[in-house]
Amino acid sequence: MNYLTVLGLSAATLTTISFLPQMVKTWQTKSAKDVSYIMLITFILGVSLWLLYGILRQDIAIVLANAITLVFNLTILWLKIKYGKTRPRKYL
Amino acid sequence: MNYLTVLGLSAATLTTISFLPQMVKTWQTKSAKDVSYIMLITFILGVSLWLLYGILRQDIAIVLANAITLVFNLTILWLKIKYGKTRPRKYL
Repeated sequence: MNYLTVLGLSAATLTTISFLPQMVKTWQTKSAKDVSYIMLITFILGVSLWLLYGILRQDIAIVLANAITLVFNLTILWLKIKYGKTRPRKYL
Repeated sequence: MNYLTVLGLSAATLTTISFLPQMVKTWQTKSAKDVSYIMLITFILGVSLWLLYGILRQDIAIVLANAITLVFNLTILWLKIKYGKTRPRKYL
């Protein structure tokens, strides 16, 4: 495995696991008021296209990274909807 | 340009611009309490590695997408530090 592959896999791992602490924080604090709905939805759309791209190119690294990222971000969106019901939404 | 390239560029565009609404929301509300520090720092590290990966592979799409994402997320981190000073930090 050459160093570029290692670099790519490290980058994919970091950007994928980075959403785990956000998921835990949202679950702990029962609040995601400061997290933007539009960011979550746009990001989820983008990650879904990356997943489709990885499947069509049969690239397991792209499929794996984006499938996990998709699950994390759908969970954050679900938690935000669930905890957001009590507060009125004025901003984005 | 074949459809896979279009799919990849669309995915990259969506995941990149998705951080713009988060930046605007944080700037508008002057609050990023619910955004996880660990998520931001891990994500910024990952995106920096993707940027290095793109430079070494001389892939302009990867460089462009991750350079913009890096600027957006560094700005969100800066705003979170700036607005976070007044509130005590208990969670992640």
